[in-house]
Amino acid sequence: QAEVLVHALHPADAADILEILSADERTLLVEILGATIDPEVLSHLEPTIREEVLEQLGAENLARVLMHLDSDDAVEIFEDLEEDAQQHILSALPLAYRHILQEGLSYPEDSAGRLMAREFVAIPQSWTIGQTIDYLRAAEDLPDIFYDLYVVNPKHKPVGIIPLSRAIGARRPEKLGDLMDQELRTIPLTMDQEDVAYIFRQYGLASAPVVDAAGRLVGTITVDDVVLVIEEEAEEDIMKLAGVAETDLYDAAIDTAKARFTWLLLNLGTAVLASLVIGLFSGTIEKVVALAVLMPIVASMGGNAGTQTLTVAVRAIAMRDLGPWNALRFVGKEVIVGAANGVIFALVMGLVAWLWFDSAMIGLIIGVAMVLNLVVAALFGTLIPLGLERLKIDPAVASSVFLTTVTDVVGFLAFLGLAALMLT
Amino acid sequence: QAEVLVHALHPADAADILEILSADERTLLVEILGATIDPEVLSHLEPTIREEVLEQLGAENLARVLMHLDSDDAVEIFEDLEEDAQQHILSALPLAYRHILQEGLSYPEDSAGRLMAREFVAIPQSWTIGQTIDYLRAAEDLPDIFYDLYVVNPKHKPVGIIPLSRAIGARRPEKLGDLMDQELRTIPLTMDQEDVAYIFRQYGLASAPVVDAAGRLVGTITVDDVVLVIEEEAEEDIMKLAGVAETDLYDAAIDTAKARFTWLLLNLGTAVLASLVIGLFSGTIEKVVALAVLMPIVASMGGNAGTQTLTVAVRAIAMRDLGPWNALRFVGKEVIVGAANGVIFALVMGLVAWLWFDSAMIGLIIGVAMVLNLVVAALFGTLIPLGLERLKIDPAVASSVFLTTVTDVVGFLAFLGLAALMLT
Ligand SMILES: [Mg+2]
Ligand SMILES: [Mg+2]
Ligand SMILES: [Mg+2]
Ligand SMILES: [Mg+2]
Ligand SMILES: [Mg+2]
Ligand SMILES: [Mg+2]
Ligand SMILES: [Mg+2]
Ligand SMILES: [Mg+2]
Ligand SMILES: [Mg+2]
Ligand SMILES: [Mg+2]
Ligand SMILES: [Mg+2]
Ligand SMILES: [Mg+2]
Ligand SMILES: [Mg+2]
Repeated sequence: QAEVLVHALHPADAADILEILSADERTLLVEILGATIDPEVLSHLEPTIREEVLEQLGAENLARVLMHLDSDDAVEIFEDLEEDAQQHILSALPLAYRHILQEGLSYPEDSAGRLMAREFVAIPQSWTIGQTIDYLRAAEDLPDIFYDLYVVNPKHKPVGIIPLSRAIGARRPEKLGDLMDQELRTIPLTMDQEDVAYIFRQYGLASAPVVDAAGRLVGTITVDDVVLVIEEEAEEDIMKLAGVAETDLYDAAIDTAKARFTWLLLNLGTAVLASLVIGLFSGTIEKVVALAVLMPIVASMGGNAGTQTLTVAVRAIAMRDLGPWNALRFVGKEVIVGAANGVIFALVMGLVAWLWFDSAMIGLIIGVAMVLNLVVAALFGTLIPLGLERLKIDPAVASSVFLTTVTDVVGFLAFLGLAALMLT
Repeated sequence: QAEVLVHALHPADAADILEILSADERTLLVEILGATIDPEVLSHLEPTIREEVLEQLGAENLARVLMHLDSDDAVEIFEDLEEDAQQHILSALPLAYRHILQEGLSYPEDSAGRLMAREFVAIPQSWTIGQTIDYLRAAEDLPDIFYDLYVVNPKHKPVGIIPLSRAIGARRPEKLGDLMDQELRTIPLTMDQEDVAYIFRQYGLASAPVVDAAGRLVGTITVDDVVLVIEEEAEEDIMKLAGVAETDLYDAAIDTAKARFTWLLLNLGTAVLASLVIGLFSGTIEKVVALAVLMPIVASMGGNAGTQTLTVAVRAIAMRDLGPWNALRFVGKEVIVGAANGVIFALVMGLVAWLWFDSAMIGLIIGVAMVLNLVVAALFGTLIPLGLERLKIDPAVASSVFLTTVTDVVGFLAFLGLAALMLT
């Protein structure tokens, strides 16, 4: 019954069901499905779950699965396997498939070479629409779905592209060379998938030809796979900003705990550093205990305002809306925003503190510290990600620890330092 | 010269250039381009910048621009205009265009009705491929690009879909009814764009037919527009988690400052609440000033650990990987992770505090408070977004303020409360 149900579903939905089941239920269902499992289901599984299922299926089943997938999907599954498993499976595969997988793995991780399918339609420039349609009708090994015809010259270099909607509406005698768009967005094999996603998004592409170092057509990337890359890259930014791994949801508790540990340890370091700053002023705090009560406020506001700036910066850098060309204007604007809100919150919080502890001086101190910390937060909220980007470090990964270190230290230092100067 | 350059660019690139320019430079360039500006450029502009440019172009130019765009792009620009401007432009437009815009606006914001184009290819079920191709060759008003043929019954309801790649490779006598996929993902007019994006992503679609309440085909949504929706929705989550507006980057400083103010005010409320908690223990702090030095650590670790959990939850809910069906297991796992890391950091920080202040008791207190706060952080990091989702409030918007309130209050209360009990 379960078997019938799973076979009736779209592979993407069947994969979701497998993901939702508990580990035991999943083992049972994979047991039942066994060799009959749809290869497409595996290609839709989350990597963590897929690893489990593949292990259960064993090498022989896996070789069969890979042979039934498009080359891009086969490479995607294959690249995640352990070296042993890879060797084992390669030896079980016919030479042609073996070559595809080995070649796929030879391209950098997250590159166009890993993302591309080797199944595409390339037509000589000299052909007419009539010849082309006749060829397509007779051909046996066409890709399941394609969106464009790639027009190639005798050296097999792409020279143009024709959307299928134009080809199907053209008359038989028309020449491909006359119909094609010559403005061609070719993708080099080594291009990072983030750049590929940018090109698809920017130009609204359905597919793009992939070329080798000599400019020869070797593959195609299609928008259905790019949609997943876009999701993945956005996911990466969201998750990294918070210090969690992308596979977090599907990892076992122990793996999740380990993966998050590093981030928390870094933050503990930050927190201890902030405590050291506070420690410098323990004498002052002992005398005026109101300082202990108020001091987290300045640090916290700096952290929040800085995170706002940082998030805008990280996202804008990822979307190529922020770069050296407009960095200066951006920093300037953020500092103005920080100063403006700093002044307002200085007034609000200064007044509250004054009334609360019946001391205009404490109100003044927290006000000045607030403006200072919000301006510093704006400055570092922009400079940290811009600096990391320039150092070719992903700003999403490391920015927020640096930022909270700065806003905590400056927050406590400004507030307690001013207090030490003016209250004692 | 600038004019020639802009006209040579792809509209998406020209739009980026306009966005990068300073407001003055932009005004100048739009002045130069004037009525010759490519309508497509406007549809690629960020909303904030577009508003500026449209104002400068004036109503007559704008009416012309809208007439030259695909209906989906025209609606997208039109919906952002002020009511006055809308009326003004409507009266300047031919009846057919007027109808399209008014109808577009009648659908809910961010719905399929707003996203769809009215230009699509629908073919009767009874036709052959030959008839269809002859029709496409003769037709004058086909959409620029389309990816699928929609097969309709006599009531104009879609009954199947044929990817162009299948149609172009099929033989002339073949019947559409035999070639089509009957498994059809039709989109109701009122479906939210997030749901539309989900369907495209899940099933790898290039286009999908949009139907009215009676099930009749009224439009099409294409993947190039869905790619932008996916970006937009991910953007929304990232930005909202940090309390910033999506237009932040392009807003004037004053608008940005205003937009971020609310979020910061909420956070000030949270911080003051935490201070009130600290205030309850000012007597204890006065006696043992080490408490003031150490107390931000527990709150900060809780905030960071909670944010990790929260981010995973918010993203998983948005991607439909987390819901009532697996909520309990997720909460359970998070609590285990929180407890595990809590114990480890309790040991680390307990030891550090013991050595630092030469008091085993302080080490014990911070350790116990740490475990407690990390478990609470895990619990609320999961329950807050799940609860908001159930209340149909976007978990990305409000979760993090609630969470930091909890982790701050519990962090200070646990640490200082234990200290008050055990040190005095
Ligand atoms: Mg899935
Ligand atoms: Mg795929
Ligand atoms: Mg990959
Ligand atoms: Mg593919
Ligand atoms: Mg990446
Ligand atoms: Mg990235
Ligand atoms: Mg842009
Ligand atoms: Mg742009
Ligand atoms: Mg569009
Ligand atoms: Mg919209
Ligand atoms: Mg469109
Ligand atoms: Mg939305
Ligand atoms: Mg959302």
